[in-house]
Parts: sequence; structure tokens; C-alpha cells
Amino acid sequence: AKPMRETRKMVLVQEIMQRRVVTIKEDQDITDAAKKLLKGETNHLPVLNEEGRLTGVVTTFDIAKAVARPERKVKVQDVMTRNVITTLVDEPIDIAAQKMEHHRISALPVVDAQNQCIAILHASDLGKLFKPGGSRP
Amino acid sequence: AKPMRETRKMVLVQEIMQRRVVTIKEDQDITDAAKKLLKGETNHLPVLNEEGRLTGVVTTFDIAKAVARPERKVKVQDVMTRNVITTLVDEPIDIAAQKMEHHRISALPVVDAQNQCIAILHASDLGKLFKPGGSRP
Ligand SMILES: C[S@@+](CC[C@H](N)C(=O)[O-])C[C@H]1O[C@@H](n2cnc3c(N)ncnc32)[C@H](O)[C@@H]1O
Repeated sequence: AKPMRETRKMVLVQEIMQRRVVTIKEDQDITDAAKKLLKGETNHLPVLNEEGRLTGVVTTFDIAKAVARPERKVKVQDVMTRNVITTLVDEPIDIAAQKMEHHRISALPVVDAQNQCIAILHASDLGKLFKPGGSRP
Repeated sequence: AKPMRETRKMVLVQEIMQRRVVTIKEDQDITDAAKKLLKGETNHLPVLNEEGRLTGVVTTFDIAKAVARPERKVKVQDVMTRNVITTLVDEPIDIAAQKMEHHRISALPVVDAQNQCIAILHASDLGKLFKPGGSRP
């Protein structure tokens, strides 16, 4: 049997990430973001600038915060988190999982070399690794 | 070396769950729930009834939904999700991870035989299993 560490290295982000990713533009209204989030398909909206580059992330957390506060915030760029923790298609799942655990976040946008958001990895996707017959760490 | 399946069975929910769990009562105001959630410590508030039993769960998603809608919702019980997916201290991590993946949720309240919420397991806690030197599947 191979040592476990070597076995686990074989699993890359691309094997369990979701290629269908709902995104939003930074100059869209918060209400647009709320609508997308409340459709329930995702809790993490990667935010793109005019060139399609990833510049932030918005979750229901940010929406709830925005509505709970008195000051008027209208655009996605007013409430998004700018310091986005991301992953890469060929990053080992170990590293991506540790990032989520360390930062206590439940999803990582998957970016390419041009910082385009090409997929998303949810913490719940890690469950696929524990499936009988599925990819395993 | 042991077969992987057997090795993985050794890891139980209690090894990576969080024993500190912030909860809320079902007759509290939504604003109380919002305050707890927006402190940012958690995105999942287990909801307890008068006897301290788990009856629901509230996330920022439910808060965002409540404020986005015209009808006035005031109590936690008006917006909480009642059909709660839970786990047990001695459930194998495989099963808990698959529940989160299957239902696309990012946390499971950990209940005892009396349906009291004694801890919480976040999907991001699965990252602990991938830590060098940490518990491993
Ligand atoms: C502290 S977390 C707690 C809630 C939940 N666990 C989550 O992942 O959204 C909420 C904050 O994390 C931010 N966030 C979520 N994913 C992120 C990521 N990949 N990088 C940076 N910030 C992120 C959100 O914008 C939000 O402000």
C-alpha cells in the first residue's frame, strides 16, 4: 500500500469543484446579489470587475450585514469582501481544505492564471471524497 | 497497512466538531438572531425550544430572505428551517461529510439522544482531517 500522504496528493481541486458558478458584477445592485443568493443555488457569489477578473466575494452574510446597518449601501462593491481566498484547479485538496478550515469559510473561488473565476469549491464538496466508490483522499 | 475504509472509520464526528456552539430560542426576535450571526462567529444558529431541544436552524440565508420580503416576520420560528439534518458524536465522519455534500449544507448540529444540541460540525472542519499531523481519514 502507498503511504497515505502520497495517495492523498493525487486528489486535486478540479476533481471535486463545481464548474457551474454563478457570479455577479461589482457595479450591480445589492438587491441583484440578494436575488441570486436567495434562489438558494449558492451561498457564495464571486464578484467580477469589467474585465471579468475576480475582485471579491459576496455571501448572504454580507447581505444580512448590509440590511442590518443604517447607512445606505447599494452596490455589490460596497459590501463584498475584497481579500478573496482562492484556489487553483491543480491545487491539492489538502491545501484547499486547510484554507477553508483556517479562514472559517465555506467556499473558495477557483481561478486561472488571469484571475478569471472558472469554478467554485464548496466545503461541502469535500464530502465527495468520503463517498463509497468516489475519489478518495 | 490497514485498508483505507477501516482506517477512515476510526474518525468520528466528536474528533473534529466544535463544542462551543452559539444557539438561539425559537421565540426570540429575528434581530437577535441577526446580531449573533453578524458577529461572524458562525453562519449556523441551532434553534432550541423551551425544553432545550433542537427544533430548527437559522442561517444568514434565512435572515437575508426575511428582510428581502415584504411580509413582516419577527420571530426566529417564522424563518427557521425545521427539517434539520443532524449528526451524532459517534457518527463516522464519512457519513456526516456525505450528508453535507448530499444536502449541500455547510454545517450539522450534533445532537444527543434527547435531541439536545451539544456541538456543531462545520464543513470547513473537515479541513482538519487534511492537516499534516492531524487526525486523518
Ligand atoms: C466569516 S464567514 C462566515 C460565514 C460562512 N462560513 C461563509 O463562508 O460565508 C463570512 C464572511 O466571509 C467572507 N468570505 C466567504 N468566502 C470567502 C473567501 N473565499 N475569501 C474571502 N472571504 C470570504 C464573506 O464575504 C463574509 O463576509
